[in-house]
Amino acid sequence: MEFGIQSSQKIGFSPWWWWWSNAISLVDRLSTRVVEFFRKVKKIGEDDPRRIGHSFKVGLALTVVSVVYYVTPLFDGFGVSTMWAVLTVVVVMEYTVGGTLSKGFNRAFATLLAGALGVAAHQIAIHCGEKGEPILLGLFVFALAAAATFSRFIPEIKARYDYGVTIFILTFSLVAVSSYRVDELVQLAHQRLSTIAIGVATCLCTSIFVCPIWAGEDLHKLVAGNLEKLASFLEGLSAECFAEKGGIENLEGKTFLQAYKSVLNSKPTEDSLANFARWEPSHGRFWFRHPWKQYLKIGALSRQCASSMDALAAYIITTSTKSKTNTDPDLQLRLRAACKEMAAESANTLKELSTAIRTITVPSAAGRHASAAVAAIGKWRDSLSDDTAVPEVLQVATTASLLADLVLRVQKIAGSVDELARLARFKRPEPPVHDAKIKPVADEESPSHLSITLEK
Amino acid sequence: MEFGIQSSQKIGFSPWWWWWSNAISLVDRLSTRVVEFFRKVKKIGEDDPRRIGHSFKVGLALTVVSVVYYVTPLFDGFGVSTMWAVLTVVVVMEYTVGGTLSKGFNRAFATLLAGALGVAAHQIAIHCGEKGEPILLGLFVFALAAAATFSRFIPEIKARYDYGVTIFILTFSLVAVSSYRVDELVQLAHQRLSTIAIGVATCLCTSIFVCPIWAGEDLHKLVAGNLEKLASFLEGLSAECFAEKGGIENLEGKTFLQAYKSVLNSKPTEDSLANFARWEPSHGRFWFRHPWKQYLKIGALSRQCASSMDALAAYIITTSTKSKTNTDPDLQLRLRAACKEMAAESANTLKELSTAIRTITVPSAAGRHASAAVAAIGKWRDSLSDDTAVPEVLQVATTASLLADLVLRVQKIAGSVDELARLARFKRPEPPVHDAKIKPVADEESPSHLSITLEK
Repeated sequence: MEFGIQSSQKIGFSPWWWWWSNAISLVDRLSTRVVEFFRKVKKIGEDDPRRIGHSFKVGLALTVVSVVYYVTPLFDGFGVSTMWAVLTVVVVMEYTVGGTLSKGFNRAFATLLAGALGVAAHQIAIHCGEKGEPILLGLFVFALAAAATFSRFIPEIKARYDYGVTIFILTFSLVAVSSYRVDELVQLAHQRLSTIAIGVATCLCTSIFVCPIWAGEDLHKLVAGNLEKLASFLEGLSAECFAEKGGIENLEGKTFLQAYKSVLNSKPTEDSLANFARWEPSHGRFWFRHPWKQYLKIGALSRQCASSMDALAAYIITTSTKSKTNTDPDLQLRLRAACKEMAAESANTLKELSTAIRTITVPSAAGRHASAAVAAIGKWRDSLSDDTAVPEVLQVATTASLLADLVLRVQKIAGSVDELARLARFKRPEPPVHDAKIKPVADEESPSHLSITLEK
Repeated sequence: MEFGIQSSQKIGFSPWWWWWSNAISLVDRLSTRVVEFFRKVKKIGEDDPRRIGHSFKVGLALTVVSVVYYVTPLFDGFGVSTMWAVLTVVVVMEYTVGGTLSKGFNRAFATLLAGALGVAAHQIAIHCGEKGEPILLGLFVFALAAAATFSRFIPEIKARYDYGVTIFILTFSLVAVSSYRVDELVQLAHQRLSTIAIGVATCLCTSIFVCPIWAGEDLHKLVAGNLEKLASFLEGLSAECFAEKGGIENLEGKTFLQAYKSVLNSKPTEDSLANFARWEPSHGRFWFRHPWKQYLKIGALSRQCASSMDALAAYIITTSTKSKTNTDPDLQLRLRAACKEMAAESANTLKELSTAIRTITVPSAAGRHASAAVAAIGKWRDSLSDDTAVPEVLQVATTASLLADLVLRVQKIAGSVDELARLARFKRPEPPVHDAKIKPVADEESPSHLSITLEK
C-alpha cells in the first residue's frame, strides 16, 4: 500500500480507494459478525436438537390451524372468529407437553368462566337503560379487572394460574364491553369457544404426538445431572488437591472448580419444570402424579451442597497461594489422606445417586460410600486427637477461617459499591465534625493498614 | 353435648341434629378457611400497598380504553378493531413502568414489522393463482413461525424480546392468513395499528402518571435491603455466638440464622428488574442509562457472601451441640474475640454500604470498618502463631471441617433420593454377586457412627 499512501498525499482528502478499502473492511466486519451469529445459532441447535424440532412443530401447528381459513365451508361456519384459533396456537404452544397442557387448560377454563360472567354482566346491565348500561359495564370491568390483577400477587396463583388470570381479564373485558355493540352475543361466544377449542386441540396434538418433549423427563435428567456435577467437583478435589505428592497449589483455572456453579442457580428452571410436569399424563417411566415435589427437595439439598462447595472452593483458592512450612509432615499427610477419602467417597455417593435416578433403580452402593465418607470424618478427628492442643481450638479456628473468608467477600462487595458510587455519581457525604480524614480502603491497601493496626 | 350423645343412642342412626351439627361444623371450617384466605390477601396488600394501587390502575386503564367502544363516533372509526385496544391493555400493562415500556415497545415494533412483512407476503402470493395462494401463504407462515420460534432459544433474545417475538409470529400469521379473505387489507392494518397505539398509550399514561412504580427504584432498594440482611446475620453472630460469656449453644431457631437465606435466590428478581430498569426514563434520583449492570454485580457478590454464610451457619449449628472441654481457655478467648471483631466489623461494613446505596451517598465509614475486619484476621492469625503446632495444621484441618460438613449434606441428599426411590417405586437393582448385605446410612446414624470411630 506504499503507492496508496503516496497518492493520498498527492491527491489530498479521501480518495476513491480510501472509501473503497473502508467499505471492504466494513463488509469484512459485518460478514464476520454474521458468521459468528450463525455459528452461535448452530451451537444452540446442536446443544439440544429438540429445539429445532420444537420450532418446526410451532410452524406445523400454525399451518394446520390456518387451513380453517382457507377451506370455505369451515370459514363460513366460524367467520372472523377463526382468528382466535390462530391466536390460541401462537400463545398456547410451549416447549414442553406440560407447558402446553397447563396453558391450554388455563386458557380454556378461564375463557369459559369469564365468558359466562361476561354474559351475566350483560344481562344485568341491559336493565339499566341506555345511559346506565355503559356505566354499569364499565364498573363491572373495573371491579373484576382490579380484583383479578390483585389475585396475581398471591404466590400460589402466580405460580400456576398467572396465564389463566390474564385470559380471564381479557375475555371478560372483551365480552362485557363488546356486548354493548354486538347483538348475537351467544352466537359470538359459541364461535369463539369453538375456535379456541380447535386451537388448543391443535397445540395438544402437535405437542403430544409429534416428538413430545416432557417437562417431567427434563426435570428428572436435570436433577440427576446436577448431582453428577457436584460429584465431579469432589472427584477433582480428591484427585488434584489431596494427592500424596503435589498438593493444593495453582488451582485457579481448573475446570472442576467451576463444576458446581450452575447448580447454584438451578431453582427457577426446576420450579417451572416441576410445575409443568404436574400436568403431564403418564409417559415412559413416569406416571401421572409422579412425586415431582421430591425432585424439588433433592434440588434444594443439591443447592445447599453447592453452597458448601462454593465456600470450600473459595477457601482452598485463597489459601493455596500461601507458602507453607511443614513442621509436622506426618500429621499433614494423615489429614490429607482423610480429606482425600471424604472427598472421594462423597463423590462416589453422589455418582451412585445420580446413576440411580438416571436408571430409576434403588440406590444400593450409595449407602456404603456414604458411610465410608462418615468414617473418614472419624479418622480425621482421630488424627487430630493425637495432638491434644488442636481439637479444642479447632472449632473456633475453623469458624474464624470461614469468617475470614467472609470478610474478604464483604471487601469485594465494598469495592463493587465504590464502583457503583463512581458510575452513578453518588453524592459526597457531609464532612464529619471530628475525624476529617478518612482514607478509603481498597483491596490492595488492606494488608498495610493491617500492619499499622497491629503495630499500635 | 352430653344430651346429644344420649339422644343419639336413643333415636338411632343420623338424627336431624347430627346432620345439623355436621352442617354447622362444615360452615365453621369453611368460614375459617375464608377468614384465613382474606387474612392472607390483607397481608399481601399490607406488605406492599402499591400492589393495591397497581390493581386499580389496571382496572382504570381498561375502563378508559373501553370508552372507545361506548362512544359511537369513535367506534364507527375503528369498528371491531377496537377489541385490539382492550387486548393490548390487558397484556401490556405490567407492574413496573419499565415492564410496561418494554412490553409496549416490543408490541408496537413487532406489530409494525410483522404487519409489513405480512402485507408483502400477500402481495407475492396473489400472483400465484387461486390454488397457489393458500399454499404459498401456508409456506410463508410455516417458515417464519419456525425461524422466529427458534430465535427465542437465543439467550439475549429470550431475555429482552421474548414477548416481541410472540407478537411477531401472531401478527404475521394473522395478517398473512386473513389476507386471503379480507379485501381491504391496508385499511384493516391501519385500524389495528391505531387501536394498538391507543392501547399502548393508555397503558403508558396510567403507568407513568398514576403512582408510578419504577423497576429501577425497586432494584436499588432490593440490593440495599439484601446487604442489610447479610449485615443482620453477622450482627446476630457477633452478639450471640462470640459473647464473652455464653457461647455457641442452642442456636437452632434463632432468626438471624435465616436472615441471609432469601438473598441466595434473589437472582431472577434482580435480573428481571434490571432488564426493565433499562427502559425507564430519568426519574427521581435515577437517570436514563443509570449503571444498572453494577447492581447485578453487587447482587452476584452478595449471593457469594450469602453462600459463605450458609456454610458458616451450617458449620456452627452442627458443632454447637457438641460438648467441649476447654484445655486452653485463654487461646479460646482470644480466638473468640477475634471472631467477634471480624463479624461485628463486617456487619458494620455491610450496614454502611447499605445505607450508602439507600441514601445515594459515597460510602465513607465503610472503608474503616472493612480494614478493621481485615485487622481482626491478622489478630486471629497472631493468636494462633503463639502455638506453633496449630497454624501449619490449620489449613488442612479447616478444609477437612468444611469437607465434613459437605459429607453430611451429601448424606441428606442420599436420604432424599432414597425417599424418591420409595415414592416413585424405583426398580430394585440386580442382586450383586458378592457383598449381599448393604446397610443404608440414615441421618441419625452419622453422629453415633462418628462417636464410635472417635472412641476407638
